Amino acid sequence: MKAHLPQGSVGFVEEKRFVFAEPPHEMPLESGQKLGPIVIVYETYGKLDRERSNAILLLHAFSGSAHAAGFHPGEDPSKDKPGWWDFLVGPGRALDTEKYFVICSNVIGSCYGSTGPDSVNPGTGKPYGLSFPVVTVGDMVRAQRHLIDHLGIQRLLSVIGGSMGGMQALQWAVDYPDRVASAIPIATTARHSPQQIGFNHVGRAAILSDIHFNGGDYYGTGKVPERGLAVARMVGFITYLSDRKMHEKFGRMKQLAAKGGGAGPKKWGEGTIGYHSAIEFQVESYLKHQGDVFVFDRKFDANSYLCITKAIDIFDISEPSGYLAKAFSGVKAKFLIVSFDTDWLYPTYQSQEIRNALLQNGLAVACLELSTIHGHDAFLIEYEKPPEGGKPGVKNKMAKVIADFLANVASRPLKPGTGGTSC
Amino acid sequence: MKAHLPQGSVGFVEEKRFVFAEPPHEMPLESGQKLGPIVIVYETYGKLDRERSNAILLLHAFSGSAHAAGFHPGEDPSKDKPGWWDFLVGPGRALDTEKYFVICSNVIGSCYGSTGPDSVNPGTGKPYGLSFPVVTVGDMVRAQRHLIDHLGIQRLLSVIGGSMGGMQALQWAVDYPDRVASAIPIATTARHSPQQIGFNHVGRAAILSDIHFNGGDYYGTGKVPERGLAVARMVGFITYLSDRKMHEKFGRMKQLAAKGGGAGPKKWGEGTIGYHSAIEFQVESYLKHQGDVFVFDRKFDANSYLCITKAIDIFDISEPSGYLAKAFSGVKAKFLIVSFDTDWLYPTYQSQEIRNALLQNGLAVACLELSTIHGHDAFLIEYEKPPEGGKPGVKNKMAKVIADFLANVASRPLKPGTGGTSC
Repeated sequence: MKAHLPQGSVGFVEEKRFVFAEPPHEMPLESGQKLGPIVIVYETYGKLDRERSNAILLLHAFSGSAHAAGFHPGEDPSKDKPGWWDFLVGPGRALDTEKYFVICSNVIGSCYGSTGPDSVNPGTGKPYGLSFPVVTVGDMVRAQRHLIDHLGIQRLLSVIGGSMGGMQALQWAVDYPDRVASAIPIATTARHSPQQIGFNHVGRAAILSDIHFNGGDYYGTGKVPERGLAVARMVGFITYLSDRKMHEKFGRMKQLAAKGGGAGPKKWGEGTIGYHSAIEFQVESYLKHQGDVFVFDRKFDANSYLCITKAIDIFDISEPSGYLAKAFSGVKAKFLIVSFDTDWLYPTYQSQEIRNALLQNGLAVACLELSTIHGHDAFLIEYEKPPEGGKPGVKNKMAKVIADFLANVASRPLKPGTGGTSC
Repeated sequence: MKAHLPQGSVGFVEEKRFVFAEPPHEMPLESGQKLGPIVIVYETYGKLDRERSNAILLLHAFSGSAHAAGFHPGEDPSKDKPGWWDFLVGPGRALDTEKYFVICSNVIGSCYGSTGPDSVNPGTGKPYGLSFPVVTVGDMVRAQRHLIDHLGIQRLLSVIGGSMGGMQALQWAVDYPDRVASAIPIATTARHSPQQIGFNHVGRAAILSDIHFNGGDYYGTGKVPERGLAVARMVGFITYLSDRKMHEKFGRMKQLAAKGGGAGPKKWGEGTIGYHSAIEFQVESYLKHQGDVFVFDRKFDANSYLCITKAIDIFDISEPSGYLAKAFSGVKAKFLIVSFDTDWLYPTYQSQEIRNALLQNGLAVACLELSTIHGHDAFLIEYEKPPEGGKPGVKNKMAKVIADFLANVASRPLKPGTGGTSC
């Protein structure tokens, strides 16, 4: 089996569980409520060194999981997909598991193993559903800190993540200044703009509108709010891609919907069309497919969608003062901030706000805007242009920039990386 | 009553009806199907001159109606809103009704009086619903041409509209080159990008997901797919506003949802919050409100939503060749093209494509990108900054640019307007 592993893969990995905050020692939440017991599902790659100084905490985005790299037992590496940031984690890769001990845990509120709305509420013996408390990015990070304590790590070499993962990285640097040597927030923001909140609101409204949502109490009914959840995912997907990428990927190619004809791509006007949805653009099929994957393959939980998007919308690292520079006054970490020029969901100006506030505190910051066609999704994509017909691909520069930054943090004073425009 | 009319208002106007394509003389559609009888609802402002040379056809956007200016009988001008482009139409206004005869008709497929999915299908005696044929922008324009014939107008001085209205203006110039002296497409495109199609797809998916959609057969049931339609409208609204406008309008102001408290704006963290939707940002309330207005006040029909958004997505003025310059080879009209710098739904590059293809045909084109905070909505908004406390407002430059262009078309050779950046 091992012979089939791609080069640089961490190989087969097992999910681990950490349970804490057992009643009556529940973890207090920012809302004033308490949560416990809390299960945190996590994975680790590489080995913790004797000084316990080489640990990197990898923080996932909104719909991510603890499975960042490698394969789960029983999976076939020639067919199955590895973890969501596999191209970044492994021996010789940017988060080099021969040097670093990499940890990734599933956030609380999620549906991939850690305690969330689909967990049993010990008070009622039934799944929480909508009674799951409001969780903040600060709460997610506090739960992670309990895990890091449990692993016996006093200080993380780095915290790194994209999108909501970047928000967690900021939160770590602010809440636990003595416990993070560096932070790498990617394609993220210090606080959501109303436009970002608006898109999340639409997703939530679609879920709440679904007849099968049933006030969040759908567990065990055999029905889930699949249509609403699919609509929510489709909105999200549009915002993750750049306009340019969509032009390249889909253009205006059309096809008859499977029900209407089934034949391959067809130009509008061929044949009789009497039903509005019978003319379908490829971008429509793609969005439908992404909705279905989210609901049926990844089985994302609608209550987690509500819970986590609300956590992202509430997130505002500048609070309580409202001044970002003030919020960063206690920060000690070195920073690498990465944004992407075609990311219109988390535009570079939001990274610049973070950079400016850190610089006002005299902190060491490298801030790079990388050029890409992939939009917000760029932080999850290894190749800018994938290898084709013997030609080598063009790799996303992010991995190189991260590797250089980490080498600097581990050994030398900070130098800004190369390969992008300083933002 | 007349004393209360705002200065420059066209006053009270009546909706008119034109019926044609009575069976067996139905109008052929681009899909190969036929439609008839067809009702076109329209309004006119000003007087047609003796030479029948001063007519301007005003073309509405996706959710618009024939009611472009003035008030309907029984309305109170001190309370009720005038037509959707009132600030542009009236004595002394840009479309000066002392000079021009302005016509605005409701497109076929719509739900505001003209034949659409909510009309009775003469073949069945029941509303068309989803059996309403696929209608294209070309079909909408052909129906308008029948109206213009009926009004005895051989040549229009101008065709003007924003968004889908701009698409119709392009279609008029291409399909009837001898019948339009000029065209003013605003905030529009020669064809939708996959991103624009994607957003429309999400709206359609939300409607189709609604349990009350019932295959489009909901007329007379007392139930309409109001939730799906509201979600669709909310997506649309986000795309109509600029990021900057949303920052200015809403910021991150929060309030407790009406159900949870009812008190005014509140900061997160005050009071106990145990329900995800109990913390609400002002942008969320605004989007909800816009959804409700669309469904309950404006009573937009869900089947029309499907029909018209599909027409917009299918629209591609470059077809059948796929070359825009070739598509414009027979065009004779003078052009004024207007885009807005913060319009990310119909970005300026799409206006530039149109300009370039017209210039390749040696046509007279003025192309202006106007600076605004309003995003795509800018073409519907009179003031960049409204008057306040005795101070004069700052007017949207669009009206001035249009007035100058029309004066040129009516009397002199074309000069590009002023007040914006040539795009």
